[in-house]
Amino acid sequence: MSVTAAKGFVASGLASGIKPSGKPDLALVATADRRPAVAAAGFTTNLVQAGPVRISKQHLVDGAAVGVVLNSGNANAATGPQGRADALRMCELAAQELGVATSDMLVCSTGLIGIPMPMDPIEAGIPALVGALAPGPDAGSAANDAILTTDTVRKQAVATFETTSAGDRATIGGMAKGAAMLSPAMATMLAVLTTDAHVERIALQQALTSAVSASFDQLDVDGSRSTNDTVLVLANGAGGGPAISLDSGDLYFRFAAAMADVCRDLAEMMARDAEGATKFARIVVRGARSMAEARVAARAVSRSQLVQCSLHGGDPYWGRVLSELGASGVHLDPEAVDIAYNGITVCRDGIGCDHDEAAVAVSMQARDIEVVSDLHQGHGEATFLTTDLSPAYIDENMRTS
Amino acid sequence: MSVTAAKGFVASGLASGIKPSGKPDLALVATADRRPAVAAAGFTTNLVQAGPVRISKQHLVDGAAVGVVLNSGNANAATGPQGRADALRMCELAAQELGVATSDMLVCSTGLIGIPMPMDPIEAGIPALVGALAPGPDAGSAANDAILTTDTVRKQAVATFETTSAGDRATIGGMAKGAAMLSPAMATMLAVLTTDAHVERIALQQALTSAVSASFDQLDVDGSRSTNDTVLVLANGAGGGPAISLDSGDLYFRFAAAMADVCRDLAEMMARDAEGATKFARIVVRGARSMAEARVAARAVSRSQLVQCSLHGGDPYWGRVLSELGASGVHLDPEAVDIAYNGITVCRDGIGCDHDEAAVAVSMQARDIEVVSDLHQGHGEATFLTTDLSPAYIDENMRTS
Repeated sequence: MSVTAAKGFVASGLASGIKPSGKPDLALVATADRRPAVAAAGFTTNLVQAGPVRISKQHLVDGAAVGVVLNSGNANAATGPQGRADALRMCELAAQELGVATSDMLVCSTGLIGIPMPMDPIEAGIPALVGALAPGPDAGSAANDAILTTDTVRKQAVATFETTSAGDRATIGGMAKGAAMLSPAMATMLAVLTTDAHVERIALQQALTSAVSASFDQLDVDGSRSTNDTVLVLANGAGGGPAISLDSGDLYFRFAAAMADVCRDLAEMMARDAEGATKFARIVVRGARSMAEARVAARAVSRSQLVQCSLHGGDPYWGRVLSELGASGVHLDPEAVDIAYNGITVCRDGIGCDHDEAAVAVSMQARDIEVVSDLHQGHGEATFLTTDLSPAYIDENMRTS
Repeated sequence: MSVTAAKGFVASGLASGIKPSGKPDLALVATADRRPAVAAAGFTTNLVQAGPVRISKQHLVDGAAVGVVLNSGNANAATGPQGRADALRMCELAAQELGVATSDMLVCSTGLIGIPMPMDPIEAGIPALVGALAPGPDAGSAANDAILTTDTVRKQAVATFETTSAGDRATIGGMAKGAAMLSPAMATMLAVLTTDAHVERIALQQALTSAVSASFDQLDVDGSRSTNDTVLVLANGAGGGPAISLDSGDLYFRFAAAMADVCRDLAEMMARDAEGATKFARIVVRGARSMAEARVAARAVSRSQLVQCSLHGGDPYWGRVLSELGASGVHLDPEAVDIAYNGITVCRDGIGCDHDEAAVAVSMQARDIEVVSDLHQGHGEATFLTTDLSPAYIDENMRTS
């Protein structure tokens, strides 16, 4: 269950012909009653923003949207005014079929940069897409399939939270894609969340911002921030329950925590399915002077090509971790740093320490690896997700065709 | 000719047994008359600084040195107080044999991080090293061989400049090593320069700083800044000629230009011999708001794994270059950026433009590739050196043993 897990949302996906492979490439998520939901979003901080990012930003000014049309196979980025016109046309086509205002539709694209959008398959595909809208898990999966690029698996997550003391619950569901250019800053490749909770706009945006900060923003596979990164959330209130605002106290926090759970699950799925990855690593930095410094340090270790090469080889070469911490710009005393692989401390006070080398070697054979660095400077802590760097990553990225 | 190109310098190199392979691993460069030369240096800005970096800094406080002892096969980094004691002992051993003060000797190490220095081979090797000191190209090459790690070729460069209107000339020679962790900030892996010019200390440091900024600091292969980066220069005045100070006008500029030439040659050799590299790329950013912004943008493109993957495939995928420029944090208008590969403009005003695709494809087969981005924001310009990312880089770095 993903974007259709929450009550009152429908979805569809199909192969329109954008992708030469004939794989699904066009998706739609909308409210079942076609009334605008409360909407919030996060977008890439890259100055080069794709046409769909710019159009969606405009359409979100009023904080409401009926749905989002998405395509894979072409990023519609670096395509200039024509790209923006094409993104707007995608909204218009979907809006006409749905009988709603164009400005109530959002749009996301992912794929290659710099290539004009092939609009013929989209013009033909959107009516069929609207016709196929349906509730339920199959429809959600069809939409998810249609936004994948080099992803090898769907990325779906669901969480629920209590809205009343009588035990009523609301649902948050989401789908995502993301396999390279994974260093989201503000959002990730593409993620769409829906909830049937009744949420005020500011609370929705705040909860999303917090969730993104604790999930997609703590994912760094290759240091590259895409031109198209977008995360959207639609809240239709179809589940009933009290309105959630920033003043709702525990209710707001339960909602925000559930949203963060969904985003964290999706972010972890992205890392696990990153291009060419054979390892999944949690890079933890503790004891930093501040949480911000912990994030800077953890990001530096996560995106290090050399650390990733060691992960690929299953080699607990902590010297590279220490070096990246030292180069990251955060406060540290090189001789007060401890580093542990999979719970076994291999470096204490900045130098190698006696440890069970056989036990570490065995633990490094696992797909999941945890590297914890303690800087002993304060209480700042952050956990980033990353992967190893494998020849398959290069193979997937050396040619666009 | 390298560190022995300038008059009055001797060098030696041998295999002491630090490297299990039995390859050369211990080198010495010194003044022939064993009198202190004027000395200047640049060191890594990584907070984790190897023992030899810290000892050399102390010994440079007086701006004078007789020579430098160097080893490969062990970085003596993340080795704590014992590592500093070992680095000091290397200076002491060399100083005793040379009959000079310990504080007049500098020390550099390169190799794996976090492993205690094997001092037995060094204790035995340094007397032999001093005994082998000799002038001339063979001695210089022996020293260069002994500082290489995964380098496949020596890195030597020489320049001369006019010191008097009568046509007298002075010489600057240098040697270097560097194959991974190539994102020097302030210096590079290891480089030792010598000159027989008569240079005052402040002028020597200033010329070195300028030269490093225009050479090693514009090299970014993998974004990793080593714990051991060091560049040293010794000026013994053995060539005679007038004293060079910051007030020497044209003479100072000729000297500084020659020093920059040597550093640029060495930096280019490092990029060309980077681990696993099959391509050598000049990443040029023009039209930035300032020179500082041009450097930030060029560094972001240079270190991008995805740009490097495209270089590996010979694919002129300019969309990734544009995306990295947009994410780099510099001022730009995404629709006022031009990008050219090997002199052929493939992106104009931020979108793809008609061009001779066959001609670009043919040019991308060459080992040397130039990528020029024009931001049209001002007059800031920078040229960085980088390489492709190949499976061989991963292979070299996935295991330390």
